[in-house]
Amino acid sequence: MRMGILTGGGDCPGLNAVIRAATKTLLSKGVEVWGFKDGYRGIYLRDCQLLDRAAVSGLLHRGGTILGSNNRDNPFRFPVRAASGEIEYRDISAILVESMNSLQLQCLIAIGGDGTLSIANELCSRGAAIVGVPKTIDNDLAATDQTFGFVTAVHTATEALDKLHTTAESHHRVMILEVMGRYAGWIALWCGMAGGADVILIPEIPWQIDRVVEKIRGRQLEGKLFSIIVVAEGTPAPGGKRVVREQIANSGDPLRLGGIGEVVRELVEQETGMESRVTVLGHIQRGGSPLTTDRILATRFGVAAAELAMEGRYGYMVALKGTQITAVPLKDATKPSNVHPDGQLVHAARAVGISFGD
Amino acid sequence: MRMGILTGGGDCPGLNAVIRAATKTLLSKGVEVWGFKDGYRGIYLRDCQLLDRAAVSGLLHRGGTILGSNNRDNPFRFPVRAASGEIEYRDISAILVESMNSLQLQCLIAIGGDGTLSIANELCSRGAAIVGVPKTIDNDLAATDQTFGFVTAVHTATEALDKLHTTAESHHRVMILEVMGRYAGWIALWCGMAGGADVILIPEIPWQIDRVVEKIRGRQLEGKLFSIIVVAEGTPAPGGKRVVREQIANSGDPLRLGGIGEVVRELVEQETGMESRVTVLGHIQRGGSPLTTDRILATRFGVAAAELAMEGRYGYMVALKGTQITAVPLKDATKPSNVHPDGQLVHAARAVGISFGD
Amino acid sequence: MRMGILTGGGDCPGLNAVIRAATKTLLSKGVEVWGFKDGYRGIYLRDCQLLDRAAVSGLLHRGGTILGSNNRDNPFRFPVRAASGEIEYRDISAILVESMNSLQLQCLIAIGGDGTLSIANELCSRGAAIVGVPKTIDNDLAATDQTFGFVTAVHTATEALDKLHTTAESHHRVMILEVMGRYAGWIALWCGMAGGADVILIPEIPWQIDRVVEKIRGRQLEGKLFSIIVVAEGTPAPGGKRVVREQIANSGDPLRLGGIGEVVRELVEQETGMESRVTVLGHIQRGGSPLTTDRILATRFGVAAAELAMEGRYGYMVALKGTQITAVPLKDATKPSNVHPDGQLVHAARAVGISFGD
Amino acid sequence: MRMGILTGGGDCPGLNAVIRAATKTLLSKGVEVWGFKDGYRGIYLRDCQLLDRAAVSGLLHRGGTILGSNNRDNPFRFPVRAASGEIEYRDISAILVESMNSLQLQCLIAIGGDGTLSIANELCSRGAAIVGVPKTIDNDLAATDQTFGFVTAVHTATEALDKLHTTAESHHRVMILEVMGRYAGWIALWCGMAGGADVILIPEIPWQIDRVVEKIRGRQLEGKLFSIIVVAEGTPAPGGKRVVREQIANSGDPLRLGGIGEVVRELVEQETGMESRVTVLGHIQRGGSPLTTDRILATRFGVAAAELAMEGRYGYMVALKGTQITAVPLKDATKPSNVHPDGQLVHAARAVGISFGD
Repeated sequence: MRMGILTGGGDCPGLNAVIRAATKTLLSKGVEVWGFKDGYRGIYLRDCQLLDRAAVSGLLHRGGTILGSNNRDNPFRFPVRAASGEIEYRDISAILVESMNSLQLQCLIAIGGDGTLSIANELCSRGAAIVGVPKTIDNDLAATDQTFGFVTAVHTATEALDKLHTTAESHHRVMILEVMGRYAGWIALWCGMAGGADVILIPEIPWQIDRVVEKIRGRQLEGKLFSIIVVAEGTPAPGGKRVVREQIANSGDPLRLGGIGEVVRELVEQETGMESRVTVLGHIQRGGSPLTTDRILATRFGVAAAELAMEGRYGYMVALKGTQITAVPLKDATKPSNVHPDGQLVHAARAVGISFGD
Repeated sequence: MRMGILTGGGDCPGLNAVIRAATKTLLSKGVEVWGFKDGYRGIYLRDCQLLDRAAVSGLLHRGGTILGSNNRDNPFRFPVRAASGEIEYRDISAILVESMNSLQLQCLIAIGGDGTLSIANELCSRGAAIVGVPKTIDNDLAATDQTFGFVTAVHTATEALDKLHTTAESHHRVMILEVMGRYAGWIALWCGMAGGADVILIPEIPWQIDRVVEKIRGRQLEGKLFSIIVVAEGTPAPGGKRVVREQIANSGDPLRLGGIGEVVRELVEQETGMESRVTVLGHIQRGGSPLTTDRILATRFGVAAAELAMEGRYGYMVALKGTQITAVPLKDATKPSNVHPDGQLVHAARAVGISFGD
Repeated sequence: MRMGILTGGGDCPGLNAVIRAATKTLLSKGVEVWGFKDGYRGIYLRDCQLLDRAAVSGLLHRGGTILGSNNRDNPFRFPVRAASGEIEYRDISAILVESMNSLQLQCLIAIGGDGTLSIANELCSRGAAIVGVPKTIDNDLAATDQTFGFVTAVHTATEALDKLHTTAESHHRVMILEVMGRYAGWIALWCGMAGGADVILIPEIPWQIDRVVEKIRGRQLEGKLFSIIVVAEGTPAPGGKRVVREQIANSGDPLRLGGIGEVVRELVEQETGMESRVTVLGHIQRGGSPLTTDRILATRFGVAAAELAMEGRYGYMVALKGTQITAVPLKDATKPSNVHPDGQLVHAARAVGISFGD
Repeated sequence: MRMGILTGGGDCPGLNAVIRAATKTLLSKGVEVWGFKDGYRGIYLRDCQLLDRAAVSGLLHRGGTILGSNNRDNPFRFPVRAASGEIEYRDISAILVESMNSLQLQCLIAIGGDGTLSIANELCSRGAAIVGVPKTIDNDLAATDQTFGFVTAVHTATEALDKLHTTAESHHRVMILEVMGRYAGWIALWCGMAGGADVILIPEIPWQIDRVVEKIRGRQLEGKLFSIIVVAEGTPAPGGKRVVREQIANSGDPLRLGGIGEVVRELVEQETGMESRVTVLGHIQRGGSPLTTDRILATRFGVAAAELAMEGRYGYMVALKGTQITAVPLKDATKPSNVHPDGQLVHAARAVGISFGD
């Protein structure tokens, strides 16, 4: 029996640990395992490598993905160079399903975010045999209690906060940390709680600069001449406008690339007169060796996905519910999980004095 | 209104974070908060300090407990110097209940392990108003899905494994890491899975040296001339005999202090002829700053305990169930949680090739 | 006898360790020690605190400075609000010298960068008794082989490189890390060597985009589809123009704040067509607990400065030469130390294949 | 031209970085490079691998040595199985020199401690062409200001001290950390200074339990109810007797393996009545990824050794003097460097209140 594995979307600590666990599980059952390169593109181009024990040895603690990834290709609108030399966008989904058949893949394990898994779901409906492993560093999938890589990203952001604290305190400044989170504030909320932030601004809770200033002023009255603000990159500015750093960066002016962090800084300086600085963590949050708990979650996901594949439960993906791994339909992968503004975590954060600017 | 807080049992990363969160929550509701020193002894001696905002500032990331702890005193058998000069053991529980009343403590928050919480439960039955926060670095309480400090301890052990790997590989040795876990193998299981151990020996699964040797030999056939074994301190030797390091250490001979780690080493060297070394992590596992996720769990426990106290739900303790904090009766605190030999975690570990020596 | 301590300039890991070591040394000799707040401003405003054993307990591993700092005030041009309500700039140096006398300070220990130490030197020539401790995270002082905090900053940058590696490799990108270094490339050179960078761009070595592209292309021919570039913030663009991030940030447009990192990215994308991303570490490099070696260097500097002060060697500062601490005249503090383009370190970097773009 | 590389002695963070740097430097000059396995044994058995760019890629941050090591074989007394089946010890040095010639090795780079380098020196006097790279985690070579791996080991020990601090403080205990250092106390001194130890016991300074107790009592008077002691494994007991853990461990009784740490504990408990605990770091100090500064020192050593080899300066080894790499005769490798009891470092440690028990 032969099966395939691929990784799609942005990289995330733990991808290699999933590949290793799934491969080891399949090999021990006598399955031949192939890794496809750079997401679905690898199936289209038949660009793949045999995954034997040696190939997955030493992967447990290694960040990134040895299979490469691709966070732009969409097989339903795939860029192909036409005879005319122009780039055309074609639906190559039938070719993919056909490829999997002719390669005699009993099943494909697709590890990726909502993009990769939505495609997997669609391909299943067209006859492909795929099981999924959810991956999102933002932790914003409703179908699973947690995703691997999230804790590692939060840890990196918390370490940055620990460092900003000493600068803020020494110079009596307002330090702002902009972290990942396009639509959901999970990273901002967790790292803010773990790193002792004074204000956390997230997409799910509309905020006003007045309330932020109130918090900073309140601290000054207690003799604390500095404050720490964490803001998720997708948090709208007070008027509701989103300021997406990457879009601005792509505007053509290399010096123009502020994001919500800079908007917050500008407002804070205007309203308080205090010196303020922004730090944008960016890609550092995605990199590095997965922390202990992410290694374990990734291993469990990999083993469970291999078992779903062997049981023929195509169209399902693995998920964490409480302390147990379960299987849920791939189509549930796209339901977003947002921070609930009145949920337990936000409530606990408020109880220890954190302001959400509302 | 006035309330008290104390910490009991062995120290654990996150104790200070619980103290901070509970205190901040209570202060924001106008409650006066007192911290009692060194467990129940502090109430007996009325040795306490006022916990205001300044007292709990900066505690989030600090290991240990500012209140001190005591893992031997039992108020039902408390050592008191009698008039004769001899030490006598007395039941001081009535004095404690009386003290709490005369100090006008509306409620006491007791943070501790099964010892501390069993005492709390017994004191409640004699009229005291106590809510509990469970603490065990071994993670072996059935009443809660996880305890704070556990992930930090596992992380320390995993880092040690990462380091032993390079030595094992360079010198073709069998390296043995003895970790905490008197009755339950949670730390050994987690760190072994995260650190790529080849063999994990835990109290819940009887093991034989032959199966361990088989695994080591199998690796040699694959060209891997080294192996890594993790063993929980409470794992019985093959004949079923427990070898408790601290008891041996207290035998009076300072040079006599082996534990199960050394027993495993002796057997491995005898049976394989390979050079083997033991590392005993010991107290390092209890120390240091809590990791991100333990800071958050500790904060949530502290907030929830303060709220139980204000709601008058005496005799209850906080617990984690899935992603939510709940309240469970204190009497459930003593039910142990052991690693299930056929549970999902052990199953996943076996799937990636880990041997349990059975 | 009474002495004072102050810290000036940007914060740096190890400042507190210097304060602790100097204070402990002085206290053991019976000297009364006062800490002045926010640099020379503290002497002007007589804003100070007594430093006893309790005040410096626990400071060894704590980042930042408990005395606060100020990296803008210049006593020779100090902002003072005149009777008219306007801000006027006055020379308050005579007031400072007079203050030190009337406070009966036998000597002042000034810990700071070339600004702080130049002022100290000038005040000495006007009768003040000051000894110095050099501080610059950029490591760019000729008078000392190394400064405390530098290794910690390099370590933070190296960890970031380790993380960017996995992203670069997974997505076949060119990742650019912009690190501190206004005039000297020490941080860039060290972190680039330790973190396995492919290209290092520093102020001391003029570079051309063609040579950078050549390196990236050479790697592609070897099958390495990603590259890592480290650039010091003060590195001029190819035409020789400096692009200082903070000046652009202060231009009034919050979204305009690129630096040399973005210029390099733009050029790389244009010339290679490869996807490229910039990460700007910023203030994170200054923060956090000092690493082991910085704690030791800071301790040695603090002890030596206290001894210079007691020996009456005013006008001198401590310095590291080889393995020994020595004293050098304060006026030598301003001589810069740049990376030598043909020195041993650059030579070693080139030997292992690193390109400097020249 | 063809050259060889081998590693000998106990493993040490940075060995792989030396191998990588030397290989890259040689390859860029067109030299063919072979790595010999497990020290001199690899030359005897002609057990080797070609080191090309791919073989050394990714080694910079990897602990241990890919070439394997052997810290017992001595070519002047090498264990060989005779025709009779008995193990005999023979001088195989002539065979080694002959092997290097017939393998057409222009030069061999030997990376190792005083054992490996003394052998190299002796082989050179018998006609072999060898250059050396000094390696000792104990930092106890007079010929070089510092050795790679030392800072990483100190860092691991300092982190352990940071963790023991919180336990000591919470439980009012005396915590003892036993670190490496057979004949020299460098690791103990550095980690003790960086980790805030109260007492440091090293082989170079005879100590008395009375002075240790005095320090502990002095702290109690200041309200500090805990103390931290660091002791180097080779420190003699008060009577002058050495208690070497490994020799005791090899006595045949698996439960008998105390060392100087336990002796100190016994004495402290007897004399103070305080609870005391020992932690033995052991092999963890040797393992793991080298820290930033060790990666750089190892890289510089590797480059310089390759250049010595190409310049034909056989019989020399690389060394650090101040900020520069130099070459010194191999015969100087065995001169020990001990901590000077009145040197600057010990003086600084005393100034901040650390007791050496003398």
